[in-house]
Formats: sequence, C-alpha cells, structure tokens
Amino acid sequence: MQQASEAIIEFNNTGLSILEIGHRTPFFIEVMEEARALVKELMQLDDSYDVMFLQGGATTQFMQIPMNLLDSDETAAYCDDGVWGSKAIKEASLFGKADVVASSKDKGYTYLNKGFSVPSTAKYLHITSNNTVEGTQYFAAPDVSVPLVADLSSDIFSRQMDYSKYSLIYAGAQKNMGAAGVTVVIVKKDILGKIKRPIPAIMDYRKHIEAGSLMNTPPVFAVYVALLTLRWIKESGGLAEMERSSLEKSSLLYNTIDSLPVFTSKIAVEDRSRMNAVFFLNDSNLEAPFLDLCKKEGMVGVKGYRTVGGIRVSMYNALPLESVVAFTDLMKHFSVVSG
Amino acid sequence: MQQASEAIIEFNNTGLSILEIGHRTPFFIEVMEEARALVKELMQLDDSYDVMFLQGGATTQFMQIPMNLLDSDETAAYCDDGVWGSKAIKEASLFGKADVVASSKDKGYTYLNKGFSVPSTAKYLHITSNNTVEGTQYFAAPDVSVPLVADLSSDIFSRQMDYSKYSLIYAGAQKNMGAAGVTVVIVKKDILGKIKRPIPAIMDYRKHIEAGSLMNTPPVFAVYVALLTLRWIKESGGLAEMERSSLEKSSLLYNTIDSLPVFTSKIAVEDRSRMNAVFFLNDSNLEAPFLDLCKKEGMVGVKGYRTVGGIRVSMYNALPLESVVAFTDLMKHFSVVSG
Repeated sequence: MQQASEAIIEFNNTGLSILEIGHRTPFFIEVMEEARALVKELMQLDDSYDVMFLQGGATTQFMQIPMNLLDSDETAAYCDDGVWGSKAIKEASLFGKADVVASSKDKGYTYLNKGFSVPSTAKYLHITSNNTVEGTQYFAAPDVSVPLVADLSSDIFSRQMDYSKYSLIYAGAQKNMGAAGVTVVIVKKDILGKIKRPIPAIMDYRKHIEAGSLMNTPPVFAVYVALLTLRWIKESGGLAEMERSSLEKSSLLYNTIDSLPVFTSKIAVEDRSRMNAVFFLNDSNLEAPFLDLCKKEGMVGVKGYRTVGGIRVSMYNALPLESVVAFTDLMKHFSVVSG
Repeated sequence: MQQASEAIIEFNNTGLSILEIGHRTPFFIEVMEEARALVKELMQLDDSYDVMFLQGGATTQFMQIPMNLLDSDETAAYCDDGVWGSKAIKEASLFGKADVVASSKDKGYTYLNKGFSVPSTAKYLHITSNNTVEGTQYFAAPDVSVPLVADLSSDIFSRQMDYSKYSLIYAGAQKNMGAAGVTVVIVKKDILGKIKRPIPAIMDYRKHIEAGSLMNTPPVFAVYVALLTLRWIKESGGLAEMERSSLEKSSLLYNTIDSLPVFTSKIAVEDRSRMNAVFFLNDSNLEAPFLDLCKKEGMVGVKGYRTVGGIRVSMYNALPLESVVAFTDLMKHFSVVSG
C-alpha cells in the first residue's frame, strides 16, 4: 500500500505520478512486461502460453471466451457449480450451444461432481475453480480430453497446481492479485484462431497478445498494483508459501467448525473451499446474535451471501493467520456463552 | 494526487485503503453516486439521461454502441474524421451496416465536413468530437434528425455545449477526467431497448443503469480519481472555466504558429482542435532540430503521431497556461535562431 501510495505522487524517480505515466512509455512497458512474466513464472508455464492484462472483470470473460473459442454451430461443455458458473453458461449460450455436463444444483451446490464425461466434440470444458458464494473448490482438474477453461477469480495464486492442464485461465484481480479494474487471462495460444466468427478488435485475444496487452490504454494503476502483489508473492516464497498459509488458515477454521456443535458446514468435506468457508448455526435463531457479536468485535463482512444465508469467512492471500485465530476464538467464546 | 495517494493508505477515516473498500459498501456507493450526479450537473443534463462508469475504454464502446443500438439488418451513419472514427466504423460493421456519410480522408483529415445529410432511416450518427491524432474538433453538433452519438474521449469536460443534443456520449477517462481504467457513458434512456439482438449481460447498458454501475466489480480506484477530478472541475468554476482556460491556451499556441513563418498548420482554421494542436515546420529539415530543442528543455511528448508526423501539442484540462507560455517562448526562440 505504501509503495502504491508513493507511486501516485512520484513513480520510480520519473518526476511523474503513475497516473500521468503514458502507457507507451518505457517505464510502463517495463511494468507490464514484468507483470506478465511473473504470472508465467509463478505458475510454471512455458512459452506456449501468453498472459494478458485486460479490463472488464470475469463477467466480461463469460462473454469473451465463447466469442473467441465457440462458433455458433458448436458446443462447449460447462459445469454448473454455483452463481458464477450459471452466469458463464447464460452468456455462452448467446454464442453457441452451452452443454451443462455436470451440476450440483440438486444438493444446493454443496458439492462438486467428479468423473463426469464430456463429449469429445465439445470445444472446451468450463469450470469455476472456486465458488465464493457456495464455498466449494476444485482440488483436482477434471480429467477430460477437451481443452480446460477455468475461472480462477477467487483462488488464483493461492496454491500449487499443474497449471499446464488448463488451456485458458482467467481471474479478476480484486481478490488475490491487487486492485479492482484489471483481469488476467492466461491462454495456451494453440486454442485461438479456430472459429469463423469475426471478433470485435477489443475482444480478440490474438490482438491483445500481439500488442503485449497495450492495444488500447490499459488500467495503468491497477496493473502496477498487480505487479506489486506478484512481486510480494514471489518474495514471500511463491505459490508453495501461499498454499501453506492458505491450508493453515482454512484448516484452523474448518477444524473449529467441526469441533463446535453450535456450528455446521453443509459442504462435502473434500470440496470445502480454502478461500471461502460457508457454514451455519445449527440453531438458526443463533445466527443473528452471532453476527451481532462479530460486528461488535469489528469482524465485518462475514454474513453469508443473500441467497445462501449463514456465515461466510473469506481467507484470501492477504488475510493474516492472526485474523483467523481471532475469529475462531470468537466462535469458541460464542459456543460457550450460547451453549 | 495528494488526495488520491492518501486514499491508498486510508480512505475517509474508514480504517481501510480505497483498494480494500468493498464496492458494495456504503462508502463506495456514495463515491459512485456523487460521480454520476456530478457528470450530469456539469453537463446540465436532466433525468432523461443516465450516467455509467464502465471498463474497457473507448475501444470497447466502438463495439458496445452498435451491440446495443444497431440490429444486423439496420444502418448507422458514421463520420470518418480520422484514426478513431475509422476504428469505430470497422467495429460497427460487425453488427450492422455502417454507412460513412461524411469523410475528410480526401484532404488527409485536415478539416471536418458540415452540412452533410444523414438518411432518416439511420439508427444514429456517430462522430468523434475531437481527433487527437489529426488535430480537428467539432465546434457545432451536426444538425441531424437521428440520435447523435459522440466519442468525447479527448475533449470531455473541456467546454460548454448543449449536451442535450446528444443521445449518447462516451469517453475514456485518461485525458480530461482522471486515471486510465474507467470509461464514462452518458445515455438518453429512450434510445435503449429497441433492437432484437440478445445482448451479453456485461455489454447491456440497461443492466448497468439498473445496477447503478455496480453490476460487477467496478474499477474502484479509477472511479475515485474521476470523482476527485469532477469535484476539482466544479470547484474551479465548471465547464465555463475549463472552456475559458482551454481557449486561452489554444489561442496563444495557434496565434504563435500563425505569426511565425517557420511553423505552419494544415488544419482548417475553424476546425482547429483546442485539445491537440498538430502543426509542421515549413522546412521539414528543421523538424528534428526543433524536437531536439524541445527535449533539451524538458518538453517531451510533442512529436506528431507516426502516421501524421510534425509536432503535436496536447492541452488537456490539467495542463497549466504556464506550460503553453514556455512552449511558445521556445517556438519564438527557435524561429529566431533558425531564421
């Protein structure tokens, strides 16, 4: 934050604010190139992949992905695992056929399907890697023969994985990667250029790759904040350290939920998200008093999503372990006084 | 800059950085609402208009406008007045018929057409209000009966105008309105909802209006910087003062060009842009020495666009008169030593 704040006043001894730096100056081109290279380095991806920093958030990718990969007479496979996946399916169906090959809607999105099959004619399979609203997360990439496309908006850079199993990964930056206003898209280049539809310039991944993400004015400051975050991840020990820390925080929270009878989780144990723990009070009458206590102790933003209810605790990279310790202490205290 | 920098450390005594503030918190909703209201206030627009803060820059609007307003069997009229207009025409032709009703390409885009006619069947007429590359600017809205759509990316908030003559105005924020990463779109609501094409959610103006520009995570910091700029414009005396200052700066520069035989402008006098003065040295051999002198005096960024050449001086709202005085003094000095 300190570095970002200082860059507003003066960026790297240029005499200019980061808000004034031209996006075609060597100063900013260096920022963009370092950020793009760090994404590949952290994910251990080779040069068959390219990295773009774009605008518009994951919601734009819901449209941009089928626009680039799916012709109107073709089919793409989608997993319906919650709010975000459903939105992605809806947008894809405007461009071609979106075939829902797996859904966990039958049990209120409390688990993830495994071992489902995907027709070999599907152009790709789309999954939501982590479901922020429902509290589920994929811990193994579906084993399919078609290109895998994944929305990592809420769990990017949180763990080690074989990222080369994916052909396209995208993520809005605001959760694990910096400030709102920039979206990272990582694509295996060989899946592009295979459709007949003419693509509007600003939506065409090939044009962004060709221009090094400088086709039009990029969100300069948000890219700079993303770079600072990427450097911090690398200096902290990379994805191995992010995963260790994430496991430590989420294990503590889930162990506390499981050990206190006043709380309950409805999520299949093996699918529990390390980013967003969604759980409930066994006696729903205790929900309001518990949320009141949280508020009194300064722990805000733990109310569950309106369609799900209950409690939701988010544990993104930036959250220190101490915050989870304090929260679980509060849970234990509440368990005693209400029990 | 100072205020923006401080907000990175702590925003309005919330204990949080503007980069951490949730976009659905009352703190940020207030920022967004004030910014949207100030745009309408400065432009003196009534409630038949709505204001959106979106992502993706003007290049996204080149696509988003026809996506929302033009069915595939319909025609929109476009003025071809330079690089940006040409790009807008290309994108529109992917969605319907883009009919070029006026072009100044015949004379190298050095003037703007007036009095051209537009078929009454056209869904809208699109103009580029100010041409940054070529150095021309519209000083009167074309008198047509179809809805007017204008790209004000490079001259928004620089002058008083009857903005109610326009049905849609859009502008990337990076020139006269703050930081890169946010685009303002001002629309007269009655032109929406008149096509058959299904519109992807993130592209649908109606959905953004309904959600108060909070349909998905907005570029929080860029919106905040835009708000600070809008407040500064209002406190400085509004668009009347921006226009006075802009006229003062541009008159000084154009008078200097006209008074020194070493320099020449190819732009029709009545169409000369107050934002970007594009001019040449009568003896092209003097261009390099003049640019060298500018560089030596710390005046960078005055080289003309690569396809046009010559000199280009940009005079956006943030540029102080003193900079133009210093530049014209340099022109006079160069005129003496080279003459």
